[in-house]
Amino acid sequence: MSNSICFLGPIGSFSHQAVTMVAEEKVLIPKGTITGVINSISEEECSEGLVPIENSLEGPVNETLDNLFYKENLFINLEIEIPINLVLASKNDKFNIVYSHPHAIQECRDYIRRKSFDKVIPVESTSRAAELASTDPNAAAICSEMAARIYNLRIFDQNIEDNVNITRFFLISKKETREGTKSSLIFTIPHESGSLYHVLGKFYEEKINLNMIYSRPLKSIPWRYYFYVEYEGNKNERLLNKLSEVTTSVSFKGSYSKFSNNDSRF
Amino acid sequence: MSNSICFLGPIGSFSHQAVTMVAEEKVLIPKGTITGVINSISEEECSEGLVPIENSLEGPVNETLDNLFYKENLFINLEIEIPINLVLASKNDKFNIVYSHPHAIQECRDYIRRKSFDKVIPVESTSRAAELASTDPNAAAICSEMAARIYNLRIFDQNIEDNVNITRFFLISKKETREGTKSSLIFTIPHESGSLYHVLGKFYEEKINLNMIYSRPLKSIPWRYYFYVEYEGNKNERLLNKLSEVTTSVSFKGSYSKFSNNDSRF
Repeated sequence: MSNSICFLGPIGSFSHQAVTMVAEEKVLIPKGTITGVINSISEEECSEGLVPIENSLEGPVNETLDNLFYKENLFINLEIEIPINLVLASKNDKFNIVYSHPHAIQECRDYIRRKSFDKVIPVESTSRAAELASTDPNAAAICSEMAARIYNLRIFDQNIEDNVNITRFFLISKKETREGTKSSLIFTIPHESGSLYHVLGKFYEEKINLNMIYSRPLKSIPWRYYFYVEYEGNKNERLLNKLSEVTTSVSFKGSYSKFSNNDSRF
Repeated sequence: MSNSICFLGPIGSFSHQAVTMVAEEKVLIPKGTITGVINSISEEECSEGLVPIENSLEGPVNETLDNLFYKENLFINLEIEIPINLVLASKNDKFNIVYSHPHAIQECRDYIRRKSFDKVIPVESTSRAAELASTDPNAAAICSEMAARIYNLRIFDQNIEDNVNITRFFLISKKETREGTKSSLIFTIPHESGSLYHVLGKFYEEKINLNMIYSRPLKSIPWRYYFYVEYEGNKNERLLNKLSEVTTSVSFKGSYSKFSNNDSRF
């Protein structure tokens, strides 16, 4: 469907929250995995896909990076950054058990300790926790505000997470966007001394700031790597030409800006 | 205990397999998490700990990297590399269900498809799968050869994984080792243009080969990173002095050699 966006589900997930910010009139289709979202773009079930790329505490989302590396003709069109705010929500005033995803339980450790609930039960997603709390009169959920609203739960406490926790999402499609505040590249390097140093030298020569660099294993050859970088600025042909001299492969993955609530979509 | 090694359990795990290679007469104590292993060294419950650091398909083990970064006075003393070979094992000749860990099921996708079992059931570890197969007459496990032996299972097929899959483990203690074929460093860099380039330049000047570089988020400041590197050679004071000029912090994490079955222990 040309007018649809696939996203990493389930309904009420933080990806769902991110995709509603940019959805406009488009149809939203949840998928069970990141690879499922990416495949739905390749197979033209959806024109766009929304997936998480990085969390400020946990680091890169490897499944997203690996899909960007192994699949061609996919481009990042937009970046969406949202704070991972968790709420405590329930149908009733009284409850003694709490459902949540193990990561969310970890994130709210101090809050949970202070509240001393009888039982904290890990389940497969914060959305599933909200669903369970909607049917169990003795239970609450630690979940997103969106999941609490979807399952008609009353919110007792907001922002109960211990630390600042932000996740970045990418809107991805087959359309190459060449302008934005940032761009992404993926490259591999020769297996010789100083090769990464020489690659970074090309960015320095061109006065281009790197925002981040992540390395990931090349699954085909143990202990060899590909590199994912984000830099400030647009697609830059001169940089790409220079990089092609010092890399074994280099692939442009799109230029994009950050969505903010005040923006019109692009 | 001065004569004990903690390792990432449970009994029959690949960490258990790795630690038995270097255990000699020492007492082996399984721990439930990597952080549990590391804490047991800090608190002197164990004199050494064995944890996974990197897998050739999945990349770095973030919990190990973060512990090396956040905890001081821990040093890598030895590297142990083992192939993650999986076996199909059962008590009986006939079985129609198979237990395993989700990662192991993923790793044996082609084999499982060819065998067309009635049911493949994910459980929390390959060791737990072997334990279940030892009590359920209709079940087999996909597990390590060691777990199959511990739970008295008969091995039907070996090396059933689809791809070459190797995991590296580190033996860690409070003792700083300064000689070996490789060394590890962790550093942070100034938030300015070209800073990583300048750090890598110091390795290049000293003709020191980098084997790998991984970046991980500084949890305290969103979108800032620390870097973990492994290089060829011993502790090098001149390199460390040069790095201190271009980093905001640099920490030596030990020099070490790779254990092979033919070696005496060190």
